Parts: sequence; C-alpha cells; structure tokens
Amino acid sequence: MKSALTALGMLAELYFKRRPGCWKMLAVAVCMVLLAGLQAQDLQGHVSIILLGATGDLAKKYLWQGLFQLYLDEVGKGYSFSFHGAALTSTKQGQEFVAKVLQSLSCPEDVAPERCAELRGRFQQLSQYRRLRTSEDYMALSKDIEAQLQHEGLQEAGRIFYFSVPPFAYADIARSINSSCRPGPGAWLRVVLEKPFGHDRLSAQQLATELRSFFQEEEMYRVDHYLGKQAVAQILPFRDQNRKALDGLWNRHHVERVEIIMKETVDAEGRTGFYEEYGVIRDVLQNHLTEVLTLVAMELPYNVSSSEAVLRHKLQAFQALRGLHKGSAVLGQYQAYSGQVRREQQKPDSFHSLTPTFAGILVHMDNLRWEGVPFILMSGKALDERVGYVRILFRNQAYCAQTETRWVADQSQCLPRQIVFYIGHGELGSPAVLVSRNLFRPFLPSGSWKEVEDRPGLRLFGRPLSDFYAYSPVREQDAYSVLISHIFHGRKDSFITTENLLASWAFWTPLLDSLAHEAPRLYPGGAENGHLLDFEFTGTQLRFSRQQPEQLVPGPGSAPSPSDFQVLQSKYRDSLLISAWPEELIAKLADDIEATAMRAVRRFGEFHLALSGGSSPVPLFQQLATQHYGFPWAHTHLWLVDERCVPLRDPESNFQGLQVHLLQHVRVPYYNVHPMPVHLHQRLCAEEDQGAQMYASEISALVTNSSFDLVLLGMGTDGHTASLFPQSPAGLEGPQPVVLTRSPSKPHQRMSLSLPLINRARKVAILVMGRMKREITLLVSRVGHQPKKWPISGVLPSSGQLVWYMDYEAFLG
Amino acid sequence: MKSALTALGMLAELYFKRRPGCWKMLAVAVCMVLLAGLQAQDLQGHVSIILLGATGDLAKKYLWQGLFQLYLDEVGKGYSFSFHGAALTSTKQGQEFVAKVLQSLSCPEDVAPERCAELRGRFQQLSQYRRLRTSEDYMALSKDIEAQLQHEGLQEAGRIFYFSVPPFAYADIARSINSSCRPGPGAWLRVVLEKPFGHDRLSAQQLATELRSFFQEEEMYRVDHYLGKQAVAQILPFRDQNRKALDGLWNRHHVERVEIIMKETVDAEGRTGFYEEYGVIRDVLQNHLTEVLTLVAMELPYNVSSSEAVLRHKLQAFQALRGLHKGSAVLGQYQAYSGQVRREQQKPDSFHSLTPTFAGILVHMDNLRWEGVPFILMSGKALDERVGYVRILFRNQAYCAQTETRWVADQSQCLPRQIVFYIGHGELGSPAVLVSRNLFRPFLPSGSWKEVEDRPGLRLFGRPLSDFYAYSPVREQDAYSVLISHIFHGRKDSFITTENLLASWAFWTPLLDSLAHEAPRLYPGGAENGHLLDFEFTGTQLRFSRQQPEQLVPGPGSAPSPSDFQVLQSKYRDSLLISAWPEELIAKLADDIEATAMRAVRRFGEFHLALSGGSSPVPLFQQLATQHYGFPWAHTHLWLVDERCVPLRDPESNFQGLQVHLLQHVRVPYYNVHPMPVHLHQRLCAEEDQGAQMYASEISALVTNSSFDLVLLGMGTDGHTASLFPQSPAGLEGPQPVVLTRSPSKPHQRMSLSLPLINRARKVAILVMGRMKREITLLVSRVGHQPKKWPISGVLPSSGQLVWYMDYEAFLG
Repeated sequence: MKSALTALGMLAELYFKRRPGCWKMLAVAVCMVLLAGLQAQDLQGHVSIILLGATGDLAKKYLWQGLFQLYLDEVGKGYSFSFHGAALTSTKQGQEFVAKVLQSLSCPEDVAPERCAELRGRFQQLSQYRRLRTSEDYMALSKDIEAQLQHEGLQEAGRIFYFSVPPFAYADIARSINSSCRPGPGAWLRVVLEKPFGHDRLSAQQLATELRSFFQEEEMYRVDHYLGKQAVAQILPFRDQNRKALDGLWNRHHVERVEIIMKETVDAEGRTGFYEEYGVIRDVLQNHLTEVLTLVAMELPYNVSSSEAVLRHKLQAFQALRGLHKGSAVLGQYQAYSGQVRREQQKPDSFHSLTPTFAGILVHMDNLRWEGVPFILMSGKALDERVGYVRILFRNQAYCAQTETRWVADQSQCLPRQIVFYIGHGELGSPAVLVSRNLFRPFLPSGSWKEVEDRPGLRLFGRPLSDFYAYSPVREQDAYSVLISHIFHGRKDSFITTENLLASWAFWTPLLDSLAHEAPRLYPGGAENGHLLDFEFTGTQLRFSRQQPEQLVPGPGSAPSPSDFQVLQSKYRDSLLISAWPEELIAKLADDIEATAMRAVRRFGEFHLALSGGSSPVPLFQQLATQHYGFPWAHTHLWLVDERCVPLRDPESNFQGLQVHLLQHVRVPYYNVHPMPVHLHQRLCAEEDQGAQMYASEISALVTNSSFDLVLLGMGTDGHTASLFPQSPAGLEGPQPVVLTRSPSKPHQRMSLSLPLINRARKVAILVMGRMKREITLLVSRVGHQPKKWPISGVLPSSGQLVWYMDYEAFLG
Repeated sequence: MKSALTALGMLAELYFKRRPGCWKMLAVAVCMVLLAGLQAQDLQGHVSIILLGATGDLAKKYLWQGLFQLYLDEVGKGYSFSFHGAALTSTKQGQEFVAKVLQSLSCPEDVAPERCAELRGRFQQLSQYRRLRTSEDYMALSKDIEAQLQHEGLQEAGRIFYFSVPPFAYADIARSINSSCRPGPGAWLRVVLEKPFGHDRLSAQQLATELRSFFQEEEMYRVDHYLGKQAVAQILPFRDQNRKALDGLWNRHHVERVEIIMKETVDAEGRTGFYEEYGVIRDVLQNHLTEVLTLVAMELPYNVSSSEAVLRHKLQAFQALRGLHKGSAVLGQYQAYSGQVRREQQKPDSFHSLTPTFAGILVHMDNLRWEGVPFILMSGKALDERVGYVRILFRNQAYCAQTETRWVADQSQCLPRQIVFYIGHGELGSPAVLVSRNLFRPFLPSGSWKEVEDRPGLRLFGRPLSDFYAYSPVREQDAYSVLISHIFHGRKDSFITTENLLASWAFWTPLLDSLAHEAPRLYPGGAENGHLLDFEFTGTQLRFSRQQPEQLVPGPGSAPSPSDFQVLQSKYRDSLLISAWPEELIAKLADDIEATAMRAVRRFGEFHLALSGGSSPVPLFQQLATQHYGFPWAHTHLWLVDERCVPLRDPESNFQGLQVHLLQHVRVPYYNVHPMPVHLHQRLCAEEDQGAQMYASEISALVTNSSFDLVLLGMGTDGHTASLFPQSPAGLEGPQPVVLTRSPSKPHQRMSLSLPLINRARKVAILVMGRMKREITLLVSRVGHQPKKWPISGVLPSSGQLVWYMDYEAFLG
C-alpha cells in the first residue's frame, strides 16, 4: 500500500510537471488506487496463532513479546489476527498467567506510552487462553476459529502453532493438530518446533519421520534462535551486499581462519538433568555454531532472498564438511559440574560425569573455496566472559617497509585484517558487524544498522575499536521477535529443514560416538582457567596447548587406553613382529615406510612401493597423507599389489581407494603412478588383452631387478594374501610375475603380483588388524611353508626383510 | 695445549685418588706433555700477511684493526707473523699512512692500557709498508720473506694476500702472486677477495675463470662481510645447538614467513658512480641477503663444523630456489637519486636513472621443507631506519579460550611466535638473537652470548622486548675481525666459493635482465615514505600495496605498456578475435577457459579439455595453476591435442610440459588425465600397437558424442595446427578421430587429433603469440578453406564456437 502511494506520488509529480491542470484525472486515479489497496487488505485474511506452552518460561520471556511485536508490525497491512495461548494448565490459572504477561508487554522505544497502552489493549482483546489437552480440545479450538471467521465474515489465511513444549509432547499434539485442527482449504498451516531435535542421527531421524507423518515439510518451522540473532541474520545479507569487495577475499587464499565462538560465564547448575544428557556439543555446537558455520562457508546464491536457493546452498556446505574424528576435538568440564550433577540427580559420591561443558572443534571443508582453512568452533560454560562471535581473520600477505610505530590503521596491510559478526555481550555489549579499516568500507543498510561511536580504550581482537568500521543495529531486536516475523512471512531459510537437521546430525554423530567415553579435562571455571583450555592444531589434529594436568576423573571401566602401552617388538614365524594398539601400529608402520622411502631415495634416487587394497590400509593412507610431510612423494613410484577386475573409478577398485585416501592428498607425478591394467579395450581382465604381461613388463622396465623397495601385504581370514587364494595355484610359483586369479568372494576376477615377484622385494610388510584375524593369526603362527593351503605362508623374501605389523586384537585376541 | 693440560689434570686427579704416592711418575708425564706442546708450537711456523690496498678506506677502517686482533688472538699459539701493508702509493707516503693507522689500533676492553700499548708496539714491529706495482716487486717481496725465514730459522706456514683493491686490478696482482710470490713447498697460499664479484652471471663467470687460472679454488677466500656479522654467523650454530626444539618447527608446516631485511637511512650520494652501475639488488640482495637466506633455508648438516658439508648443503639450497620473474619484485628509487647522479656524473637535465635503490623480492623454495613459505627479501636506501634482521615468524595454529587481556607472554600460543637474528642497529642497537618466550628457551653458548637486560617500553616486531629470550654478544666484534680470524683458520664455509657465487648469479641474473627497463617507484625518503613502499603478495606475485602514485620518471623510450591497452575484440576469418598484450591475453584466455569449465560442470558434471603442447601454452598453464583457484579441476578431464612420439617423461613430450607447468600444481584425479598412448610395449608410435585407435576409443567412451567442451590449438608459422602439417593428408579428413602424422621438424613422428574430431568440439580456441607469427597471421587472414595447404584453415567447428586469441605482436606485427 505504502509503495503504491509512493509510486503514485512520483507519477503525480511527473504528471503535473508535464500537464498542469489535470488534477481531476489524478484525483480519480488516487481514489482507484486507494480502493484497490483496501480491497487487497481485506483479501489477506485472518491468521490464528496458537502458542502451545503459553504459560512456560520461554513464552513468558520471549514469545508473547514476539507475538505482540508481530502484531505491531503487521496490523494494518491487510491481515486480522487472533492469538490463542494454550497449555495443560487449567483455564483459570492459565488465563491469570497470560493476563499478567500481557500486562507487561512493551513497545519499541519510539512509541509513546499512551499509544503503547492503546496497542497493548487491542492486542489483549485479540488474545485469549485456553486449555488444550485432548484431541477434542483441538477440535473445539478449530470450531471456535471457524465460528469466529464466519461471524466476522473473514477469509482464513492460515494457522501458526508454536510448540513451546518438551519434545516428548510433540507427537500427541502433532496428531491432534493434523487430525482435528488443520485450517480450511486454501489456508496454510505452520507448526513451529523448538530444539532439541533429537539426541543423535538416529533419534533425530525417528523424530523427523514421526513429524512427517503429520505435517508436510513446508509446514514445519524448526527454530534455532541463533538464526534470529541480528548479527547472525546479517551474515548472508552482508556477504551479498559486499560481494564486490568480498568476492576475491572469501576463500582459502585469503582467509587464514574462521572462529565461531560462544562463551558463557554461567554454568549448568539447576539444569544438570538436561545438560547431563546433552553436553556442550549437542547443546550449542551441533545446532547454533554449525548453522553459523554454514552461513559463512556456503557458496553465496545469486539471489539471497530466495529461501530455496539459500537452503540448497546450505545443504551443499554440509556435503563439503570433512568428517570429524576423535582428534578433531578437545573437551573440558568445569570442576564443580560432577558435584552439581550428584546433588541435583541424587547420584552417589563415586559418580563422575564425562559430559563435556567445554569443547573446541576443528572443522575443515573439502572444497576449492575452503580447503585447508581451519574453522574453529568453541563453546563452554563457566568461562571467563560471556560473548559470541564469528571472526574471519585474513592472511597477512604484506610486508610493511616502515617501522611499526609508523603504521596507520586504515592503510597498513600488515595490521590484522578481519571481519567479525559480533553476536552479542562481551566487551562491546551489543550485536555488531566489524570490518578492519585496512580491508574495505562495508555497506550495511542504513535503515537498520548504524555506525558505532568509538569508545577509546576498548580493544577487540587485538585492535582498538577505532581500527574497525563498526556497525550495530539501529534497534536491537530479540531473536524470537525476528523469527516470529520470519515465520509469519514464510521465510523458511531462517529455519532448520529436515534435510539440514539430519545433515548436521550425520556430521556430528560419529564424533559424539567416538568421544562418548573420553574423560574431559577439568577446569576451575572463570578467569582461573588461565591457559588451561587453550588449544592448537597441526593438520587436522587438535590438542590442548598445555600438558594434561593431573586428571581427577578416571576414565570409565578399566579398559587400557592406547597410551598405556608401548609398541612391542617380538618374533612371529621367525620374523620381526611389531604389535601395538591400532592407532600406534599405523603410526609406527607409516614411520617405517617413510624411513624406508628416505633411504631408498637417498641411495637410488627413487622408491618403489607396492600397496595392497582393501580397507586395512585406509588408515595407513590417511596417516601418510596427513602426517608425513617429509615423505619423498616426488620420487616415489606407486604400484598395486593386486586389483579387482573393475574399472579404476569403481568404488570396489583398489586403485580408487588409493586415489581417494592417498593420491588426492599428496603429489606423486602422474607417470609414477602405476594402476594395474585391468581395464583395456573396454574389457575387464580379458586374457587376450595381456594386462598382466603389460604390468610385468612395466615393472621390469622401471624397477631395478624387479625388486620392489617395499611391498605392503595384508592377510585374509582364509590365509590369502595379495590376490593369491588357497587351493588356486595361479601366482604361487612359476615364471609369471603378474597373474590373473580368482577370488572366492566377489568380484571374483583379480590381478595380482605373484609370490615369486613379492619375494624379490627388499622389504615386505604384512599388516594384520582386528579381532576377526585372531584365528588365522594363531593358525599361521604354527604352519610351515604351505603356500597352497595358506598363501601367506609362502611370503619369504629371498634376500629381503619381512616384518609383521599386528594390532593387539589380531595378535592377542 | 690447553685441552691436553685439562685432560692431564683430570687424569692426575683420578690417578692420585686411586694410587696416592705416584707423583713422580706424574711429574714425568707432565713434562713430556709440556715439551710436546712446545714442540708443536714451534712447528706451526710463520705466516706472512700481505694487505693489498693497505692505504685504502677499508684497510684504514677495518682491516688493520682486524689484523691486529688476529695477532692478539693468535700470538703465543705457535705461529709467528709478519704483516706487509702494500699499495701503489710511494713507499714514504705509504709508510706514513700505515704508521698513523697503527698508532690508532685499539685493544679489547678487558686489556689494560699499558698492556695494550705494549702489544701494539710489538705488532708495529712486525708490520711494514712496501710499494707493490710490478711483478718484480712481488718477486722482491717473496725473496724478502724467504730471507727473513732463513735468518730467523723459521718454517713457512703460509701467506695470506688480502685484495683490498678494485676488481679491475685483480688480474695483474693475481698473475704476479702466482708467478712470483707463492710460498715455498708445504706452505699454503690464501688470497682474499672483496666484492663486487662481477655484475651478472657472465661477468662473474669470466672473473672466476680468470682467477682460476692463477689460484686453486681452495686458495681463494671471497669475502661477504655479512657472513662475519655475529648474528649471521650464529644462524647455523643456533640451528645446530637447538636442534631438538627446532626439528619439528623449521618447516613449511610451522613457519609462516621468513623476512630477510637490510634497511638503510643513508642514500647513495657521493657513490652514485658505483651505485648507478649496481643498484640495490646487486649491492645487497644478490650477496648479503642471499647468503643469509641459504643459512636459514639449507638442510642442516649433521656436522655444522664441517666446512665442506656446510658448503654442499648451501649449494643444494640454491638448487631448490624457484626461479624469479618480473612479478617477484617491487622496485623503488628515492626521489633525489636521479639529481645526485646528474650532478656527480655530469649527466644532462633530461637524464632519469632507472637504477633501483629499493627492492622487495619474494622468494620461494621448491622443496618439501619450504614449499609455499614466502621468503621476503628487502633492502633499500633512504628509508626510515637503519636496521638489519632475519625474522622467522611461525604460524599461529592456536585458539586461546581466555579473553586476550589475560594472555601471559610465555604461555599463550596465540601471541606471535618468532625467532629473530638481529644483525644490528635498529631500536635494539646491537646484534642479538631473539626467541619468543612462548616458543622455547634457546641454548646459546654462554661464553660468547649473554642475556639482554629488559628495556621497558622497547617493542620489537609487535611485542615488548620482555616477551623474548634475548641474547647479545658478550663482546661485540667487527665482521672483518671475525672473517680475518676465519681466513687464518681456513674456515671456508664463511666465504663464497666459486660454485656458490655462480649459483647466486644464476638465480639473480634472469630477474635483473627482466627488470632492466622497469621504472622504479619514486619515494621521498625517510619517514615520509609512509606506506608507499609496503608490498604484498598473492601466490608468487608481488606488488605494492598502494596504487601507483603519479609517476615522475617516464619509462625508457615510448613503448606502450600493457596497461595502456584494453583487450580488443574484433573479427578474424569471420570468427571472434580477441587481441591484447601477451600478459593480458593469457589472463583473458584463462578466464574464458574457467568460465567455459564452470558452465560445462554445471550442465554436464564434467569438463573435457583438450590441450596443445609446445611453448605457447606454458604461460597459460602457469596462469591457470597459480591464479585460478576456483577452477573445477576435480571434474575436469585433460586430453592432449597432439603428442610427440617420445616417452612421457621426455622433456620434449607435450605431456611432460603439462605435468610440470600444470598438473603438479592442481588436483586432477588420476583417471581424468589422458596422455596420448605414444609409448606402448616399450615402443614409440608403432602402427601395430594401435595407440591412435586406443585413444580414439577412450575419447568415444568418455566424451559425449566425442565433442570436447574446449579444444585449445596453436598455429605454426607454416600454418600447421595440432600435429596436422601442410601437404600431409593424415588427419585432415576421413573417419579416423586420432592419427599418426609426420612433422617436418624433429621428432618427426607425432600423434594428433584429426580435423574432423577437432571440429566436433563445442568450442575451439586458437592461441597465437609473438612477432614470428605475424606473416602467417596475415596470410591466413586472406585464404579460404584450404586445409591441405594450411591445416589451420580447416578448423571450423561444425556447431561449436571458434575464438582466436592473438597478442598484438602476432596480430599487428
């Protein structure tokens, strides 16, 4: 309406300039437009908003106020409203409670008190409390709404149900709404859900499936109130409105790191019942910080006001997240926590909780934009300050020729360059967007953001406030008010879709599982934490900066942890045996391979390594790719010990495993990589294509004396090794260095190095891991040289060294 | 002798403890050792030191004092000395000059004045001046030395000739020494040479060859006085003595950058004759800063006291240096310089010098330790302060959980971590070694280095001095005194070997050549430079941080510079023509390829790119590798347009060019790379191996409709394209998609995509660069469709787009 009038005004101005005297025609036009406007207003219809849990804390603190704000913003724009507070509380008590809350509603600062009282009065008239317990209650509500609509001659636009109730109550309510309280035809239904949305991937999936039996995806609005925080809600608009400046900067070449932080000073006292089940990762990181992460990391849609595009790009960001592992996290727990749990949950004195109240997580994204950039997520209770922020720190790629005292803040490229979305609290005390003055002057919409006045002495992120272009909201808004408005306007991108929710749980659940029995580091709380919780990273590995102080909480049970053991050396089948827990075994094997490689390169200028496929070597490949920076890859030739007769890109292909877990992370020259030619002339392992012979002659041409520097083998539960199987003579003896063989399991066709060729190697390492291998390990320890029965027993390098690498489970059972 | 006595003392202590009463035997033993010591002392013999240019500035300022220091340090250790000042000056004048200099020699602080006077007196007795001009003079000198030796019954140990003379005098002097003044049999000769050692690679090579005709390599000691600066001389010992702490840190995973800096406040006034010929790169970077760079970057030898090992590792460091290009440098010149040159060199008013007085250079090393770490070398005159330092800044890989005000300097890993070898001057005012307290407490030999007392208020490299473990020399020593001592002790690793010198020139000469006609940025000098000389890097590209201010010195001649021109679009042979200067053309082509790739990946999920070989696409490959971060390499298939029938690793192979300039810098999955199978069964392009057919069927299997998304072609001066040559029908028409062809130039055998296959592409780009192509460009613009005469004229995509990319030289001649 307003814009129609503005347009009309402009039109009028234009019109009178050109044809003065035509005011009659204009008056007619004005009237037509006004009528059209009023008609449109009538047509928007009536919206019923049902607040479930209307007498709860959240409702009292934020939601009623949010609804009032919605009313203030939207009234007179063509909608009519009714607000239904609902709960299990008796009608009388509920009415009293609601009446009291409604009394205390406040208007924005710029509304005069009398006007505010008037508006509040009208809102109160539109609001009522009713008890909602049974399906019949919902049916009655629906009838009342319909009756009101009919009585007042209103068209129904839609109904909003706000679930401010515990998750266990969801299903019943959802069923009742679906069966008895849907709006009439042509009107929309929106149900608003509050976290927690499950406890892990499985429970979230179950909850989602249940909800989907009652509601369509587009009907559900899952709230993460962080998305309503003004600084968070500004991330995408900021990226959009400053595209030109950010386009070249917002990537791994310029961003040094991203920090996504929510620090609290409060602890969990009084809430340990909830907290003990969730912990900081589920409470803050899986939802709030992950949502923020996707807003920062996602590819920016061309049109950021398209909910659909934003949600799609967000999901793509989830897909690019590199999986987390135990080493991606550091955990802490404030010292008083276990005592609080004991008191509040009536636990015995011996009880010690393992629930983390502090977590630092290192996240990486595997895409071109962000590869290698550390995203640091951190949250904790009982810390030294309350603050939330997202900080994008840019690399310093400048050298400043003048001495430092002469650097000028807005000119020197050697001073830190950063963009901070300051979510709230902290030393600044309000939401803000900060951009270093040596970066660029950002655009922020002047209607809603204003420049912050300097506060001399205030330093943020290593610099005085005056070093930043700093903006704060013209009017600070509560997150719930923002979100309620977005629900009303159907802006789904401010909410968590089912796909988004499940993607987030899929990301976090494996980490949560792997950390379930980890003892968090204890910290005293507040400023006394000192440097105890500082952490640092190497590659994808995170660890506390300071050595572990004496640990007061023992781990669960008495299971020995890897570090309780040394790597053991002994003998197996008269050869050297190295045994350890899996992680240490892999680390030791990787070290040994690197040492062998370095020696070979020093002596011969190159290193010929033949690798087995399957799943056992995967952690080894990962170890080599991420921890062995000094490995002479440029001088290494990679050969395959065996291959399945499938195309190289097939997920079953041994080469594909090598590609994904090793090759794509290191730099081996193209012609040093030697996949087995199992796929020639569009056929797989056809005898007449002579692939085995080709591989043999490639080996003979490149590997001196056909003697590999190192052959890595595994051992199957049937005693097979490479693709040499029991009771199948191919490759066990004879002159053919490379052979086609048949596996008892699919895919049956294989290509393999032969035993005689393997035995020419300077060194052979056999990696055996897992409880499954215990039996064969025991058996093979006793048998002699019987390659036809147990091909592994035929591995005996003629002049090289043989070393067995076994984890304790394989070796000790 | 001293250590023999210490050992003896220990022996005695032990002996008496066990067998008291045996003192007689001990006394005998002591005497024997003492006698042996004295005998050894006599045997060391006599050393004659001849200072050529004894009346020059350097001699007056440093060298005589250095010789006196040598005498003080070494007298009484078994040598006898004579010091011969020599010059062209007449005997009387020379004697007077030398006598005066000798009067002013000073002793270390801890020597009492009377003792100093006594020592100076003895030194004066051993020193004399003589005129040395002709070969006969040298012969006479040699005779005098021999006579003295005979007269005093001394054995000759060796002769040191210190060339403190201009380089043009070197040859004559060297010839005279070699022919007439070599020491007797069994005694050594050492000649000490001062820079400049040539002006570029060629002149350095000539000078070296000339000197080698007179002296053996081991006889020559080329001085770079920076190697005698105490902080520089401490780099290797520091790395050695702190191996344990540094081992894990001294590499690309932990080092963020290395800065090697020498700033001067003085300008070149009074020295413009020399300076105009050399400039800052030859004066400071090619020698001093490069030497320091090698000390920081070299692999640390196991035994750092082995000169041979140190020199070998230094040379290896040179081999790892990535070549410099124009974009590796920023150049400046202080505004007053050209005026000074005009005045001092009697140049006309129109003269403007292009000699840089300021340079910033970005160096990278291509080895596993340093790949990707920027080494920033910077030096300049008329800057805001006088200071020299090497700063190793480590990456910040920590997150600190407490608010910044609570960070403690020696504990917080979030504060900068750095190691600085402070060469001298600056705010500290003395040489020093600084190590951030949050790194580790370094070991420095306490006899020669002491902790620096804190100076509150003094900040260095962003932190207060108290944040560092800071050490300075117990006794500050002049670089020349240090080096004279090293010459005497034959410590060749403190000097520049011929190999080292030529390696350094080989590194710098191409850059110097490419910069010869660049106009340096003018700067006012001193603090007024502001941020004018700050520079920053992206990839391997360096540029000033601030836009070029109005340039006061015009470039030489009136050749237009690239930025004077826009990229032009027009028509050529009825197809789109894009022309520009070479750099912009390549940039435009790379942009267009990326856009095409993005489009193809969006539409089809993959991008099939066929690339030509040869030298033209090399800058394109480099551009794609270093500037196109967003390129969808993971979804790109790379095909070859043509290939020479040589092994893939052959330097002539097109694939090898692709590997070196593109593949090793980006991540294309292994199986997306499709080299032409020119080398099958150890044979090259044998018809019966059916390589062409194999490639054709690979294309047909993977490329939809055999339609490449983009084919990049070149054009030969004979009108050939791909490996399709005039007057040779193969591949111009017919059904074969891939063919074997014959080139008029070596290697004759080729494999090539055929014209019909090329013409199936969605897009064909033809890149034509260089003046050599002018004639064929003109010719081809006029001819019709005559592929048999000009194969290029047959390129006409049937439904795709054809775009010509020509630089101005090819297009405009």
